[in-house]
Parts: sequence; C-alpha cells; structure tokens
Amino acid sequence: MSKALPKRSENYSEWYNEIIKRADLAENSAVRGCMVIKPYGYAIWEKMQRALDDMFKATGHVNAYFPLFVPKSFLEKEEEHAEGFAKECAVVTHYRLKANPEGGLMVDPNAKLEEELIIRPTSEAIIWNTYKNWIQSWRDLPLLINQWANVVRWEMRTRLFLRTAEFLWQEGHTAHATREEAVEETERMLGVYADFAENWMAVPVIQGVKTPSERFAGAEETYCIEALMQDGKALQAGTSHFLGQNFAKSFDVQFVNKENQLEYAWATSWGVSTRLMGALIMAHSDDQGLVLPPKLAPIQVVIIPIYRSPEDLATISEKVDPIIAELKAAGISVKYDDSDNQRSGWKFAEYELKGVPIRLALGMRDLEAGTVEVARRDTLTKESMPLEKIVETLTSLLDEIQTNIYDKALKFREANTFAVDSWEDFKSQIEQGGFVSAHWDGTPETEETIKQQTKATIRCIPLDAVEESGKCVFSGNPSSKRVIFAKAY
Amino acid sequence: MSKALPKRSENYSEWYNEIIKRADLAENSAVRGCMVIKPYGYAIWEKMQRALDDMFKATGHVNAYFPLFVPKSFLEKEEEHAEGFAKECAVVTHYRLKANPEGGLMVDPNAKLEEELIIRPTSEAIIWNTYKNWIQSWRDLPLLINQWANVVRWEMRTRLFLRTAEFLWQEGHTAHATREEAVEETERMLGVYADFAENWMAVPVIQGVKTPSERFAGAEETYCIEALMQDGKALQAGTSHFLGQNFAKSFDVQFVNKENQLEYAWATSWGVSTRLMGALIMAHSDDQGLVLPPKLAPIQVVIIPIYRSPEDLATISEKVDPIIAELKAAGISVKYDDSDNQRSGWKFAEYELKGVPIRLALGMRDLEAGTVEVARRDTLTKESMPLEKIVETLTSLLDEIQTNIYDKALKFREANTFAVDSWEDFKSQIEQGGFVSAHWDGTPETEETIKQQTKATIRCIPLDAVEESGKCVFSGNPSSKRVIFAKAY
Repeated sequence: MSKALPKRSENYSEWYNEIIKRADLAENSAVRGCMVIKPYGYAIWEKMQRALDDMFKATGHVNAYFPLFVPKSFLEKEEEHAEGFAKECAVVTHYRLKANPEGGLMVDPNAKLEEELIIRPTSEAIIWNTYKNWIQSWRDLPLLINQWANVVRWEMRTRLFLRTAEFLWQEGHTAHATREEAVEETERMLGVYADFAENWMAVPVIQGVKTPSERFAGAEETYCIEALMQDGKALQAGTSHFLGQNFAKSFDVQFVNKENQLEYAWATSWGVSTRLMGALIMAHSDDQGLVLPPKLAPIQVVIIPIYRSPEDLATISEKVDPIIAELKAAGISVKYDDSDNQRSGWKFAEYELKGVPIRLALGMRDLEAGTVEVARRDTLTKESMPLEKIVETLTSLLDEIQTNIYDKALKFREANTFAVDSWEDFKSQIEQGGFVSAHWDGTPETEETIKQQTKATIRCIPLDAVEESGKCVFSGNPSSKRVIFAKAY
Repeated sequence: MSKALPKRSENYSEWYNEIIKRADLAENSAVRGCMVIKPYGYAIWEKMQRALDDMFKATGHVNAYFPLFVPKSFLEKEEEHAEGFAKECAVVTHYRLKANPEGGLMVDPNAKLEEELIIRPTSEAIIWNTYKNWIQSWRDLPLLINQWANVVRWEMRTRLFLRTAEFLWQEGHTAHATREEAVEETERMLGVYADFAENWMAVPVIQGVKTPSERFAGAEETYCIEALMQDGKALQAGTSHFLGQNFAKSFDVQFVNKENQLEYAWATSWGVSTRLMGALIMAHSDDQGLVLPPKLAPIQVVIIPIYRSPEDLATISEKVDPIIAELKAAGISVKYDDSDNQRSGWKFAEYELKGVPIRLALGMRDLEAGTVEVARRDTLTKESMPLEKIVETLTSLLDEIQTNIYDKALKFREANTFAVDSWEDFKSQIEQGGFVSAHWDGTPETEETIKQQTKATIRCIPLDAVEESGKCVFSGNPSSKRVIFAKAY
C-alpha cells in the first residue's frame, strides 16, 4: 500500500495494471486469459448493467437467455461469421470424465460428442436458429431481445478487462420486417450506448461506422462508439451491427409480410462488455488511483471520523448517524469507516485509490465549528463546509463532479484530436497519439498500407463527418470526408 | 390457443410441459438438454434474482465473478467433490477450429489444450484456488461472496427448468475463521432461502438437513428447503452447505488466527437455480394455466378495454390513462392491452394462461356506472368494483392474493403430509404421494433399501423435528425423531 503507483506519464501500461490490482477490481485467474472480477470491480459492473438494462427496457427490449453452446454446424452456416470466429473458439468434445487408473481424472473416451459444441463467442447462430420458430408473420415482428451472458473468444494476448478469453457482456438480437426498421434500430442502440458512455461513464465518444475491413463478421454495417484514452490510444467501447438478411437467409427465417409474401427477416445485433471497465479506468484515473464518475461509484461518499478517544468517536458517530440516514434516503451510497485498524492517513489514500468521489473527514473541532472537511476525488481539493444542509451540498457536488469528469475528458479529447493533411504530419502525429482526422480514399488497400506502416487503424467514419472535398492523406486520391485514425486497444 | 390445457389430474407431466410452452416461459433448444428461457419466463427469473440479490446484500454479501472454466487438476483436488461431478462434466479440449478440406469447419488438432478445462458444474474448486491468495489473516475473514452464473451438468434425462444441462443460478461461497461462524452462515442462508420461497414464491417449505448419502459432494452437512408439488412429489428448492475445512485443505487456504496460529479456513456454499421456476409453476398453477404470486408477476394488473367503436375506445383510454399512471407510481406493473387483433375473450384466456394476478375489464357501461370488473387469477372469481380509489383497492388485493396463494399451498401441504408408522402404510402412502413423516433407524442401508423398494428418498431431517422415541418404519430399530420421505423431482 505504501509504495506509490507508477506514473501514467512514465509507464501507462504498468499504471493501468497496478490500479486494477490495488483498487481490487480484478485479477488474472489460474485459467489462461480468464479473469476474476473482484467484488469492488463487480460492483461497478453491476451499476453499469443496471443503467444499461433500464435503457434497453425503456427502448422496448426484453431479456431472455439462450444456450452457452453453439453446435459446430450452426456456426458454419453464415460463412463470414464462421470465418471470423473459427480461430478463437473453445471447443467441447466430451461430456464425461472418469477415474484415471494412474490416479486423478481423465477424459472418458467413450463420452465423445457426436458433434462438437462451441462455447458461444457471440450468439447470432444459436439465436437465429431459435428465431426460425418464433417468426412466421409480420405480426411477430419486431422481436427486440437482449441477453446478459458470458462469452469466450480464445485470444492469444489478453489484458484485464480489455481483452480476456472469457468476458461478460450483453448482446441484443433483434428481428424486423423491413430494412429501414432494422437500420433505425441499429442507430437507436448506438445512440443508447453513446448516451450511456457520456452520461454515466462520463466518457465522450465519437459515433461512426466501421470500414468494411473492420466490420463484424456477418454484418452489412457496423456502427461503433470510439473513445480516447489518456495515453492517446483509441478504445472501441461498443458496437451495433446492421446484419441485413444474412442470418435470416443462413437459418431460413422467413415471414409473411403485410403484402402476404414470404420475406427474410432483417436483423441487428449490438453489444457492450466488461471492456467498458477498462475504458472507465483508463479515461479518468490519475497517479493517485481510480477516479470514478459518481453515477457508477459503488461508494459515492465515504465518511472518516478523526478521533483520539472512544468517547470522541462516540460523539462523532452520534452526529454522523442521522447524516448517513439522510444520505441513504436521498439515494446516495455512503460508507462510514470507523474501523480502528488503520490510521486516517492510510484511509484517505485507500479511498483515493478506489476512486470514491467525495470524502468527508470529521473531527471534534469540526463538530464544535459545525463544519466538515469535504475532499473531492476529481480535483484532489478539500474545503471546510457547514454541516447544515450537508446532504443538499453533497447531492449537488456529486452532480458537479460527474459533469467535471466528463468535461475534463472532453477537453482532453479536443486537445488531442488533430486534423492532418500530409503524410509526414500523419505519421508523426500517429506516433505522438490522439485521434487523427484525415482524408482517406476509401480503398481497403490504402487502409491496410497505412496500418502496416503506422499501426493506425480507421476507428470510424464519424456519423457527423462534414462533406468536404480533399485528398487522401496517403494516396492523394480524392476523398469526400475525413475519417478518424488512431492506434487502438 | 383454443385447445384446452391437459388437466393436472389426468397428465401432470404433460400439463407442466404445456403450461411452459403456452405461457411462453421456455423451450428446448437445438442443443441437447439446454433450454432457451423466453422473455416472459426470463422476466419472472429477473424478479427472483432481484429479490434474492437484495436479500444477499442485506445479509452482508457482495457479488463477484469467477471463470467459467475449471482446470481438470483443480476438480481433482477435493476427492469426494471430484467423484460427485466427474460423470457429468462438459470438457473443453481444443481452442480453435479450422477450415475442413471437405467443407465447413473442423477441430484443429494443433490446438489441443495441454490440460483439459471443465465447464464449471459448480465453482468451489476455482473459487477456493483463488481464495488462497485472498486469505492470510483472520482480518481477511469472513469473506462473503456470491456469484450469478451459468453452470453445466451433463444430465442424461432433462426436463425444462427442473433438470437441464445448462442452468442459471447463484452460488454463494464464504470463508470464515471458525467452525461456529461457518455453521451460522450456512443456517442463515438457508433461512434466507426459506424466507424467499415462502414470502416471494408463496411456496411453503420444510427446512432440514440431508442424510449423509444425499449430501453435496465435499460437504460436511447439507441443509435444504423442500417443497411439495401438486402431484404429491417433493422438490428440493435450495441447498446450503457447511463444507468444513475440506476445500481449504485441498487448496491450502490457511490463515493466521487471533492466537497467531496457522489454521485452515472454514467454508460454506449455497445456491438456488432456475429450478425455482419449475417449483413456482408446479406449486400454484391450475388447469387454466400459470398462477403467479403478485410479487413475482412480470405483469401484476392487466387492463382490457371492452369497446365496439374507436370512439368508445378513446373514451375508455382517456379514463384509464391516469389510473395506469397512478398504478405505476404505486410500483404496480400494469399492462393496458388495447390491441385490436384479438377479441376480449381471447385476451381473457391468454392472461389467465400467463398467470396475471388481476385482470380489469372496462366497458362503456362500467364507465357510466363508475365501476370496473375485477377478476382474480388465484380464485378465478370476478366482481364489479368502484373506480374510485381503485389503486388502493388493487394494492390491497395484490397483497391478499399473495397471501391466499401461500395459504392454499400450505393447506395443500398440510393435507398431504402423513405421519406413518407401519411399513405397509408407508408403501401405500408413498404410492399415493405426499410428504411421509416416519421414523428411520439412521443407517444408509435402510435408506437405500427403502429407496429401492418404493422410490422414496429421505427429503430431509427437519430442523424442527420433535424428539420422540419410535421405531424405524422399515427395520423396527429404535429412532429418536421422524424424517420426511417422498418421491422427488
């Protein structure tokens, strides 16, 4: 605990790992690439889940649950999809162990599955195979279903929260009667994700579409939200896919439309995952530790009594109890840390590390003066404030902190977004980091060459890109709008 | 839709399957033994989750998440545990597919795992391997952690909700400094389950302990709640295990106790699953369909307008809108079904089938009279009630229905619990169904013989069993209290 965190400016990667470790968010498990999400980290994820789930329901979606297993033959049905996921599939081949004559257990060779089962890397295949029986008529549409689940993608290089073999996510899978409705849904859910990122996570995002080479395997169009981390790298925080009729055709999902004709259903899918935890940590935290936006903080206010004798503590606690009750009644999550096994200086550092937005310290002198010391995590400032109306004060302070964290991240992004028009400038700017807004000739060849030479990818073609005639930063060929390049997680 | 449900009295099993199908609760998936939980079924499960989760948190527990995979060598460490689960494990042996020269995909033989991974059938092994690093001192205890997750047990005979290869559940895993604290925790969580079953599910349960032969693999004591279904069979609805130091020893989890000595930690685990959905359906439903206790009903009140013209509908809707707003404000979930694609008779049957506790029907004549027709699902009665103060009326009616459903189930159980003292009576009563309360000599041999001859198992030794001297119903040997026998799901 006493050792300082690595500094962001010196070793960003180590700083990220150490925050996750010291703030008790997660750890690597004994299973390669799989993480354990620890209680404090999980409490943040639960807040994310609750907020997102409410937003999904408010937009007419319902939850359901589909099997963990995808038969191999299902995955094969949509060709691009199969290609995209085949290389990272965990495969179940047997359904029983037996005693090993040499001790311990062994796979029972007599319990081999006729057809291998894939642990879902995503659920389009199993879900569209199910939808086949649910969709007969236009009256059955739209089908607006979401699932909260674990998925497995056997990544070779993993990183806590950002890229793990198993991760938690939600995946929406909707079916519609028309292309227009499906596109509208795809865009609506992108909007929900952007709203969540900005208003809950306090992370500003660029909404855009992916280039064909970066699309989800099986999608006609992939929309995304892209955020900028403090080291100048981009992070894709959520995707929403317009799947056209690809899955309906692969799984033969036809319905009778209003004109009484058979037609394939139109599909979307959209997801965000525990990767958002990585975005949250990297977007806001500082050299003292985690910085959490109040709306996602498991503890919003911590109160620490400063005392020398048990009598003092009793006097302080008596004053604090009704404040705690009032804070809770106002929907504010509060922790009163009167534990006696650590000094208050240790506690201050600990709650700073854990990103608690507001810390109150209350001693005997405060009590006499009718004041309390209020420390803000976002600014690391402290101030003595009157105890009178403290609940109103804290309520509005939490709002102020939420806004301030967002504004800070937005300012950072603005200061680190660069319009660049020459190849030399492009290369040097990509090297320095940030979002680079540049013209691109629209060809996958140019995109690939730029990636090879600079490691930068096209993060997205922003939805709000301004039409302007320009020249591709690499080829010099004509282009009608700028796209966003960056190195990315 | 028009075909009547099978009757409980004629084909209970078919009746159960048909309710699940027609009320849109779940269905079998294309993957052997795995179910799809449909939106309406999942909405009930979500209500269960929310209530249980609140109760876990109120008793000091926090949530976390541990990997889906258990390395084979971990499962081997606790011997009884390994034996208990080895025969039903889904085993991951490879991590990649590749293109099959003959078309489609095939398992890539070059991507064989060095050590096979088991899909968790339960998480003691992976969690205690993690706890090893979390527990050093008595100050780290107790550790009170719960996980919501999917698990897989490769059952050969599956049944929707009751026994499926994959199911959803929560599993609590706690670590304590003393045996006493761990036993206390085991009993506390059993109490939480009983509270939930009775006060939310409206299912009365008997709390007891399992006989040694029915214990969880690796437990020193398994506590359970047992419920009686309408066909006279028992259903185990939740279990809470005192694990002693078994897992701490297998995974070497030692801590320095207050006396500064190294000691193995004491463990508990406890879980309930989507099996509860099966219990809920079987405990209350009738020949008209599902009957849901109001506290778990996704729709508590449905309002159906009875009209002939669009003008009438407009008039009714105008009256209904503020009532809906008021109901929602009171925390009551309400659906206004003004769809025009079905007749009201069809709607009545549909919401009966789905177990909606209260149905309001409102026509022009009701409006003039200032009344509304209120139908109760539990009693299948209807009554005209004044529209004035309808929200208060419905609020208290929902409470009344909740209580009535519980009372009915309790009466049923009381009428179907039989104290039996002779072997002939025992055999004939077991054949007829119900809980049979009888003396048992305490030996596994007698228990096994009774099971062989009657298919009845000892459901539990009730916690509140009265000490009385008696003779074993089978062997005639002395016994000090009665235990509960039944055929079970």
